[in-house]
Amino acid sequence: MEIELNDSKHTRNSWMERFETYLPEVVYGSIDGIVTTFAVVAGAAGAELQINIILILGMANLFADGLSMSIGSYLSNKSERDNYQKHLHIEEWEIENMPDDERKEIEMIYRQKGFEGKELEMVVNRITSNKKVWLDTMMKDELGLSEQKKSPLKAGLSTLVAFITAGAIPLAAYILAYAGKYQIDPFILSSLVTVFAFILIGYIKTYVTQIGLLRSILETLLLGAAAAMAAYFLGDYLEKLLV
Amino acid sequence: MEIELNDSKHTRNSWMERFETYLPEVVYGSIDGIVTTFAVVAGAAGAELQINIILILGMANLFADGLSMSIGSYLSNKSERDNYQKHLHIEEWEIENMPDDERKEIEMIYRQKGFEGKELEMVVNRITSNKKVWLDTMMKDELGLSEQKKSPLKAGLSTLVAFITAGAIPLAAYILAYAGKYQIDPFILSSLVTVFAFILIGYIKTYVTQIGLLRSILETLLLGAAAAMAAYFLGDYLEKLLV
Repeated sequence: MEIELNDSKHTRNSWMERFETYLPEVVYGSIDGIVTTFAVVAGAAGAELQINIILILGMANLFADGLSMSIGSYLSNKSERDNYQKHLHIEEWEIENMPDDERKEIEMIYRQKGFEGKELEMVVNRITSNKKVWLDTMMKDELGLSEQKKSPLKAGLSTLVAFITAGAIPLAAYILAYAGKYQIDPFILSSLVTVFAFILIGYIKTYVTQIGLLRSILETLLLGAAAAMAAYFLGDYLEKLLV
Repeated sequence: MEIELNDSKHTRNSWMERFETYLPEVVYGSIDGIVTTFAVVAGAAGAELQINIILILGMANLFADGLSMSIGSYLSNKSERDNYQKHLHIEEWEIENMPDDERKEIEMIYRQKGFEGKELEMVVNRITSNKKVWLDTMMKDELGLSEQKKSPLKAGLSTLVAFITAGAIPLAAYILAYAGKYQIDPFILSSLVTVFAFILIGYIKTYVTQIGLLRSILETLLLGAAAAMAAYFLGDYLEKLLV
């Protein structure tokens, strides 16, 4: 059951379209990944933990959280799709088995759009003469549901890859420090690299949210800074309290 | 600019409605909170870290991640609302300044619904005679956008409260263990309490996703177990490798 009313707008090639479909997963997955991992790093730095402990917890958190986010993304996309299908079948059944009631609902929808008398009768006749259009009108105007075109599996995988890739960025400085490659404080190096990554993600995010570039970058930086500072000061405070 | 076509469905009292509006935030916030915190606990248990270190990292992670998730929820709701408003103003401007083109778009939308000739002319006349209905049709049928009724601030706060409340559950056993109240292994106690909390959240989730109770509980448990196991075994492995 496919009803295509808006497709005249989509004339670009399918690769670009497919990429854009999962861009929200990539952007929000990256933000979650980098914020979470940097918060672990900041909390551990605040608590003055050793580099190997920071690496253990950062990496365990990276994979566990990445897995949980991507399974969550898979499940919520799947349940949205299932929910649409369920209501589609209910409306289909109702059109088949209680067409008079469903006709009255179309009548009510168009009465609220300002149709009356013979005009209303004509519109209702026309809409209900085509089951696809009838069903689509019920789904959109009565239930406010649009068809979910995302594949739950691809949404989950996009989230996983984006989360782990972006989340590895704040940890990279600690891997280098553990390997003894640098003399710089790994927390300072990690913070610098993370800020650059935030700016890049803020830039990519403008394609999803369609807000201005500066606001997008500032929002993403604010998010990361707030989380990192909360983790740092709490780590610092708890270290004095508990260690 | 408010167009209310579906409101006949909503006859319950406003408290219940308002609660339902933010139930997705509560459910997904709780799941994120409990999964993330339990993953930290599991990773730390796998790495055989001390109770005070687990508490420091668990709590720093709880507040940092809770803050990041809720700011993220605020920002994405805000950008969705801004995006709707932006397109609303564009369509409003187009209806005001290039009504012929916008009329033709309404004509195309209804042609695709099966209207022709005089019927099509009549429908287009009726729809375009009321600017609210005209605008609503453009938003829904041309752009596929529905008005975002959530308050970004309330969405963010619901996420924060749910995240921190649920996320505190896996940590409770470690607070008791730190205070010396129990002789049970805190990881076992934490796992047990967390499983019960997962079942409860899985139950509440059925109100959001409208999927079956058993499937909802199993899905939530699967999510938590996968993340916790990944964290535990990675923590265990990295501890042998790095400590």
